[in-house]
Amino acid sequence: MELGIIDEALPLDEAVKKSDLIYVAIPVDATLGVMKQVMDLVNDKQIVADAGSTKYALCEELKDHPMRKRFVATHPMWGTEFSGPEAAMSNAFAGRACVICEKEKSDPSVAETIEKIYRELGMHIIYMDAYNHDMHAAYVSHISHITSFALANTVLEKEREEDAIFELAGGGFESTVRLAKSNADMWVPIFAQNKENVLDVLNEHIVQLRKFKACFEKENWDYLRELIEHANGIKRILK
Amino acid sequence: MELGIIDEALPLDEAVKKSDLIYVAIPVDATLGVMKQVMDLVNDKQIVADAGSTKYALCEELKDHPMRKRFVATHPMWGTEFSGPEAAMSNAFAGRACVICEKEKSDPSVAETIEKIYRELGMHIIYMDAYNHDMHAAYVSHISHITSFALANTVLEKEREEDAIFELAGGGFESTVRLAKSNADMWVPIFAQNKENVLDVLNEHIVQLRKFKACFEKENWDYLRELIEHANGIKRILK
Repeated sequence: MELGIIDEALPLDEAVKKSDLIYVAIPVDATLGVMKQVMDLVNDKQIVADAGSTKYALCEELKDHPMRKRFVATHPMWGTEFSGPEAAMSNAFAGRACVICEKEKSDPSVAETIEKIYRELGMHIIYMDAYNHDMHAAYVSHISHITSFALANTVLEKEREEDAIFELAGGGFESTVRLAKSNADMWVPIFAQNKENVLDVLNEHIVQLRKFKACFEKENWDYLRELIEHANGIKRILK
Repeated sequence: MELGIIDEALPLDEAVKKSDLIYVAIPVDATLGVMKQVMDLVNDKQIVADAGSTKYALCEELKDHPMRKRFVATHPMWGTEFSGPEAAMSNAFAGRACVICEKEKSDPSVAETIEKIYRELGMHIIYMDAYNHDMHAAYVSHISHITSFALANTVLEKEREEDAIFELAGGGFESTVRLAKSNADMWVPIFAQNKENVLDVLNEHIVQLRKFKACFEKENWDYLRELIEHANGIKRILK
């Protein structure tokens, strides 16, 4: 496959016609509509993939499309709190996982082409069905964003002396709230498409926070210690 | 002042007798007892300082001590999720803030010596009363630890497939939960001493999380967008 970039602003149908590979990396609500149009235009030589943070709604949308075999549902697991082309970083994907969902619905040679591209970037491939992808993504990515947004709002609400935050905030605060800079255009659609899973995790998270709250209210420092030592178990996962 | 390190394991009274400067950097519950003993031993040539993450309880404990002028209450604002001597990093304090509380209660020359040491490390000094220090610390440090511990417990509780977390967890998850590795021996005493402020922030945080929860339950994506855009205001503070 020859690699060329179409750098003109073309109507979608002309852009698709000129392409060997169409890679859709836009907010996940827009993906649903754009992907439907793209898939209606592609022929059996072209390849389509997406990079969306949710996979279930898109896979459902496309599951009966006559060109489904030309499509690969992917989620390269990397991102920062910044978005748009100016947020690009060289070598960003090296060593990261890329999820491919429902590989069996893609033509083997189509899947192979896409996998080869991700491997060229240094990624390793994980296979998962779309439902499980969205559930795991709620735990390891989406809830982190909710807690960061909420923490930012907590501090902005209660701490009127912004200079004090600015002066005192150390690395711990910064790492916990940096995701709160993330873009609403990207995240509202992700949350909307994954609402059941995110709500499930969010409910559990509020339950966990209430346990901490009860420790403070009852001055139950032994139980607080237990909760903290249980949380230390995350060391098994994050080295 | 000549700098020497006492590297023998000495009884407290002998160690204090041999020292020009006594710097107490241990869990804040132990600080209260040790500091009382140290202050009873020092003469009017010696200098004492602490590095604790809470300041109010200690300042209250020492406020009427006859040697109060030889003591400087300090909090150099740097730390990681790791503790103990092996967690040391060179140049860690450069560019960070060091809070000094109730400077007016320290002898000016004593305060000056301690400030000079922090400035040598590249820190800038901020003055604050102990009550305000503890309140701000609850917002910019202590609550971040609570949310990280709770998030770790949320994920460990609901996500039984630890391999999936390990594979999928990207930088966002890692930065939000890394503080959950923090040591209970250090943090339980901090939380206990700062319980009123932490509880206040924690209550507000749960209120904020419930707003997100309501958005999901009512599929109110416009309000979710508002909450996210409000949270983006943290960009004013964290560049």
